[in-house]
Amino acid sequence: MDSTDHGGGEEVISNKQVFLADYVSGFPEESNLYLTTSSIKLKVPEDQSGKDAVLLKNLYLSCDPFMRGRMQRDLPPDRPELSSYSLGSPIVGFGVGRVVDSRHSDFKKGDLVWGSTIGWEEYSLIPNPEDLFKINHTDDIPLSYYTGILGMPGMTAYFCFFDIGSPKEGDRVYVSAASGAIGQLVGQFAKLIGCYVVGSAGSKEKVELLKTKFGYDDAFNYKEEHDLDAALKRCFPEGIDIYFDNVGGKMLDAVLVNMRLHGRIAVCGMISQYNLEQPESVQNLSAVFYKQIRMEGFAVYEHYHRYSKFLDFVLPCIKEGKIVYVEDITEGLERGPAALVGLFSGRNVGKQVVKVAQE
Amino acid sequence: MDSTDHGGGEEVISNKQVFLADYVSGFPEESNLYLTTSSIKLKVPEDQSGKDAVLLKNLYLSCDPFMRGRMQRDLPPDRPELSSYSLGSPIVGFGVGRVVDSRHSDFKKGDLVWGSTIGWEEYSLIPNPEDLFKINHTDDIPLSYYTGILGMPGMTAYFCFFDIGSPKEGDRVYVSAASGAIGQLVGQFAKLIGCYVVGSAGSKEKVELLKTKFGYDDAFNYKEEHDLDAALKRCFPEGIDIYFDNVGGKMLDAVLVNMRLHGRIAVCGMISQYNLEQPESVQNLSAVFYKQIRMEGFAVYEHYHRYSKFLDFVLPCIKEGKIVYVEDITEGLERGPAALVGLFSGRNVGKQVVKVAQE
Repeated sequence: MDSTDHGGGEEVISNKQVFLADYVSGFPEESNLYLTTSSIKLKVPEDQSGKDAVLLKNLYLSCDPFMRGRMQRDLPPDRPELSSYSLGSPIVGFGVGRVVDSRHSDFKKGDLVWGSTIGWEEYSLIPNPEDLFKINHTDDIPLSYYTGILGMPGMTAYFCFFDIGSPKEGDRVYVSAASGAIGQLVGQFAKLIGCYVVGSAGSKEKVELLKTKFGYDDAFNYKEEHDLDAALKRCFPEGIDIYFDNVGGKMLDAVLVNMRLHGRIAVCGMISQYNLEQPESVQNLSAVFYKQIRMEGFAVYEHYHRYSKFLDFVLPCIKEGKIVYVEDITEGLERGPAALVGLFSGRNVGKQVVKVAQE
Repeated sequence: MDSTDHGGGEEVISNKQVFLADYVSGFPEESNLYLTTSSIKLKVPEDQSGKDAVLLKNLYLSCDPFMRGRMQRDLPPDRPELSSYSLGSPIVGFGVGRVVDSRHSDFKKGDLVWGSTIGWEEYSLIPNPEDLFKINHTDDIPLSYYTGILGMPGMTAYFCFFDIGSPKEGDRVYVSAASGAIGQLVGQFAKLIGCYVVGSAGSKEKVELLKTKFGYDDAFNYKEEHDLDAALKRCFPEGIDIYFDNVGGKMLDAVLVNMRLHGRIAVCGMISQYNLEQPESVQNLSAVFYKQIRMEGFAVYEHYHRYSKFLDFVLPCIKEGKIVYVEDITEGLERGPAALVGLFSGRNVGKQVVKVAQE
């Protein structure tokens, strides 16, 4: 880190940043992103531009599938948090940081925070810190968890599963992308209330993790199944009550015919579709009618006001060892692009995080 | 009607019946059904076979899209009311009849009833009359209404629209097959609570009916629209809050991209798919995720216990002229097969009923 004191006591230091090189179609590649270095004053600007802003030192950045969407050109403007990235500023996403300077009355230097508008850079100026969540840090909880189990993916798993899935003891639950940031939690939540839980993932290692670490009753490697319908029938001879969908596409189509009467499909994501020019078609949607299935899409940002309720549930679970969380932590912002792109080939094992700085 | 008295006081008369000639694939044709005449004693058998049974003189038979399903071979046995028709007995469906004889304590000669297991014949022996609904008949209500607005289609329109659609004033509602037995009611229910309602149908005459008779704000003939997406965008420039789906397939696919955030799709039927060997594929299912759409299938038989609640609502509406109902009544059982098959080419205007006998 280069630093220069410009006489006025304001330290100027270098700030590595990750930019999008150009808008992406198809699978993103590492070359779609590039690293550059600018400089930044370690102080919130004193003029109007810094009013109510905070300056963060970024510690962890989160790699999330929805970021693929934002790499696309000309997204509809109705959901700003999912709009196209600007090519003129670093990409943004979820992350954890420490307040270095603040002109906002709710934040002071040293505060730890997490939020959804953290730049992929070493330091970020946050003009609207109202959207940040303060972290009440204790030493027994890794800070990186606030990009995962204690952040957006945790809330997503919890509210999407319980609100849409309406699970009850004995329900047969199927989770796709089951070892990922969200899936690993859904399986554990389902086991906590006495469901029968099967997950799928894309490697032998992940399938092992599902069974040995996360307590899934059964698991399969979808890449090794020629016939998804047969795989589901093998795991669920009596059908599926709840499908927690992270992938969409062909898997969803195969699940539809294996749902039970009044089954619920909680649509949390459709990662298999994000890189396709044309979405895969679904043939079996009439099952929704024949089996009175309820299918519903979920957006976590609508549930942020319930964060403390979620923490009240999940923090004791972590401390008592009832819930575990597996992270795949990449060290260094310069390795961030590879980590982010790796999500879409399933390279990560567990929640993919980029560690930017040592706490 | 031929009648013979066999001495014992038991009148034996002829009983015209409609049988399925063979299981159907593709669109059903009139030749898939045939009329035959057997004879029947106008008395419930006195042996074990007649225990608790009633004998009905059938007055009205209902033509319903789900009957196409039952014309298929080897349907899964999990839903008996939707199982394959037997070739050895008349087809069955909803209908209205008068009790001619009864060995069940709840029914006496002269009672009017409607139910879902009425044979397509002049007289039906009903071994389990517990499933019949008694009709409290008043002269200002046509008896045929108990195959429509006051029967299964009425309950379907009401509970499917209100339970799954969760409508509120100002919601933008789209109904397909909008002039049919169910659609015409959904549009009127939606108008009653202050929704903006658009319907589609398959002829100029039906479109006129939607606008002039049922109070739809707008309507279009789907057969004249080359681009369903464009038609929907024209009618709903700000998108659709509730889609009441009677047809499925391509229409559902076009609707998905025109739904608003948190839209609801009440899947009441998918008539466009019933005659296809391969279902049409749906491309736009990812909208469920992006727009947090709730989509749910409906089965009316689960709501029969709420029938009196429904009547409490709908009978005053009819008497006060707030709700109208259009029926397409075919006279004579021998014309029943053509009427039933005509449903699938949209030949009927309004609820298709077959009048078997004069009350």
